[in-house]
Parts: sequence; structure tokens; C-alpha cells
Amino acid sequence: MVVALGFDNLVFSQFVCYSILLILETIGIALLVIRIRVKRKVFSFPEDCSQFIVGKHHLKPTADDAQIKRLRRCHLNNLENIVPFVTIGLFYVLTEPDPWTAALCFRSFLVTRIVHNIALIQALPQPTRTFSYLAGVIILCFMSLSVFQRGKM
Amino acid sequence: MVVALGFDNLVFSQFVCYSILLILETIGIALLVIRIRVKRKVFSFPEDCSQFIVGKHHLKPTADDAQIKRLRRCHLNNLENIVPFVTIGLFYVLTEPDPWTAALCFRSFLVTRIVHNIALIQALPQPTRTFSYLAGVIILCFMSLSVFQRGKM
Amino acid sequence: MVVALGFDNLVFSQFVCYSILLILETIGIALLVIRIRVKRKVFSFPEDCSQFIVGKHHLKPTADDAQIKRLRRCHLNNLENIVPFVTIGLFYVLTEPDPWTAALCFRSFLVTRIVHNIALIQALPQPTRTFSYLAGVIILCFMSLSVFQRGKM
Repeated sequence: MVVALGFDNLVFSQFVCYSILLILETIGIALLVIRIRVKRKVFSFPEDCSQFIVGKHHLKPTADDAQIKRLRRCHLNNLENIVPFVTIGLFYVLTEPDPWTAALCFRSFLVTRIVHNIALIQALPQPTRTFSYLAGVIILCFMSLSVFQRGKM
Repeated sequence: MVVALGFDNLVFSQFVCYSILLILETIGIALLVIRIRVKRKVFSFPEDCSQFIVGKHHLKPTADDAQIKRLRRCHLNNLENIVPFVTIGLFYVLTEPDPWTAALCFRSFLVTRIVHNIALIQALPQPTRTFSYLAGVIILCFMSLSVFQRGKM
Repeated sequence: MVVALGFDNLVFSQFVCYSILLILETIGIALLVIRIRVKRKVFSFPEDCSQFIVGKHHLKPTADDAQIKRLRRCHLNNLENIVPFVTIGLFYVLTEPDPWTAALCFRSFLVTRIVHNIALIQALPQPTRTFSYLAGVIILCFMSLSVFQRGKM
């Protein structure tokens, strides 16, 4: 017998990989923020600034610049979408879905997030960003419905 | 034998439904923010504004108005509470709790979140919002204690 | 046979305890924010202020002061790190890792988060905060790699 939450279950195995890819992408954005902060010397806290001396003056904490604002918004938006995906996805795996449908859901969700992030960071013309966000929401709703058909309240 | 993380386990099945309801409610608030942004034409990014022309002028990105600030705070606060609920709740299900107690925990938590969200969005007089938040924290602490009794470090 | 996601599995049992400690610490910071808001009478919303009368005047909502800004940043940063830890950690447990290595990962991660939080709240000289953050990311990457070796896409 194949255990539902084990790597011998192909659907679970795929779910695990796509979840981790989403998370690593989000961590990558956080590291990018650190890199840009150091490069442009834009910091929020005095203790960060005191590491850097420009001319004879210490840096002062400044409000985030436009690029950092975009990246942080992107990071937060990813987090807001990873939590539902990981939670609903785990429950969805337990409903023993059709492997082909499940793989389609996981792959499409990853694609919508990548498109969303590129659209946000590169300031692509709307409605690219909104549509990719809504496509992700539709996938989440589809998985939720599949789970609700099995659940009891 | 009933598998702990399977839909034949009533406690797990209920946990799944209440978790998804919490998540869908949070996504609903995110969609509401998009709707209000479009309706009031309040956007954070230039590429959102360029879709809209008011008179002969393009819109400019503006700071969020009060209603959007409330909704985004509500969204973030939900996320902050869903993560502990889903995580601790999953562990709690694995402790094989009394089904009646477990259902009470899950239902009460959903109620505290709905009261909190209404209090925040409608600006109800305090301490409604704070008390509903604290009630949710107490439920989380109760479930944590039940789990700690089973766990080993 | 020991069930992978059961309290008889030592690795899972430890993972559960460290996850809950991380979550309770984060909730503790949220409660600290409420306490400081009431003590310093710094509120974001009018309905919070109307509970307090200073002299003959009602309070007005104010922007967060520096200490609250730090604590909220700390809370958000914890949330950003708990989501990957709980998700990747759960998958990592299912790979049946060496118990000693797994315990080292979980304990080190908790330590990096505590150091990070103290460094942020007490404004310790950099690069304490950045290094503790990066140490946490390295642990997450190590666990991800272990999972990827088992997963299939």
C-alpha cells in the first residue's frame, strides 16, 4: 500500500517539489532585497547604516526606494499565496486526485506566481499582474472545492 | 484502522474544512481590496494607474486610503493567524483529541476571526477587536499545550 | 511500524515542539506590541484611541513609534521564516532523516531566530542580524536539498 504522505506517492512527491520551489523563490527575493539595500545603501534601521560611511558622514535611515518597495511587496504577496497553496495543496493530495490534474494544478500555480513576480518587479503593463494573481486564486478555489467534496463539518 | 490524516478521521475532516474556510475568507478580503482599488482608483504602482484616465490626466499613485489600509491590515492579520492555526491544528489532530473538544476549538477559532475582521473593517468600538484576537490566541495556546503533552524534545 | 507523522517518531515529535516554540514566540511578540501600544498610547485606528482620554482631549491615531516599528518588523520577519520552516521541515521529516542531524537543524534554526529577534529588537550592532538571518536560510536550503533528493517532478 502506498502511503498518501510519502515520496512513493507521485502526486505528493510533485506537490513537495513545487512547494519548495515556491518557497525558495520567495527566499531568493528576500536575499535580493538585502543585496539591493547594501548596493544602494538604503536601510531602515540606524544599526544597519552605521556599517557604512559615505564621505565623512554616517548614513541615515531612509524610506525604502521604489525598487525595494516593489521587491518587498512581491515577497509579501508570495507569502500570502504560499500559505494557501501549501495548506490546500496538502489536503488536496489527501483526496487522492487524478495525478494528471494534480500536476497541472501545481505547475500552473508555479507559472502564475512567476508571471506575477516578473510583472510586479519589472512593472509590466497591467492587467498582466492582476490576471496572473486571479489565475492563481482560481487554481486555489478549484483545489478547495475538490477537498470540500470529501470533507465533513 | 482509521488513518489520522485521512478524511475518514472526523476530527481531521473538520480541521480541513475550517482551515479552508479561513483561507478562502482571507482570499476574499484580498479580492475586495482589488475591487475597492478599481472603484476608487487608488493604486500604489504607476502601471496600475496608466489603465485609467480621469479627464485629460493620467492617475498618479497615491498612498492607500483609510478603507484600503483597514482591509490590508485585516488581510495581514488573518495570515498571521492562519499560519499558527493550520500548523498547530494539524499537530493537534495527530494527538487524537476528543472530537467534541476539537470541533469546539475549530469552530470557536473561526468565530473569533470573523468577529475580529468585522470589528476591524467596520471600526466597531473597542475592545471587541482586541478581545476577539485574544480569544483566538487562547484557543491556539490550548491546542499547543495538548500537543506539548505528547511531544518530546 | 512507526508512522512517520506520529508522536512515536522522535524526529517528528521534535519537529512539532520546535515549530510550536517558534509560533508561540511570534505570538508573544504580537502580544508585546499590544502591551506597548496601550502603555505608550500609540494607536493606528480611531476606535482604539477613543478608549483613552488624555487631559480633556481624545487621542489621535499616530504613526507607529520606533519601538513598535521594530516589533512589527520582527513579527513579520518571524512569519516569513516560520512558513518555510514548517513546510520544508514537515517534508524533511518524511524523508526519514538521521535523528541527530534533524535535531541539529531544528535546534539551530530556533537559535538563529532567537538571535535575530534579539538583534532586531535591541538594535544590536550589525552584522549580527543579517548573519543570523542567513544562517537560518542555509538551514532551510540544507533541508530543501535533502527533500529534493527524494522528490520527483
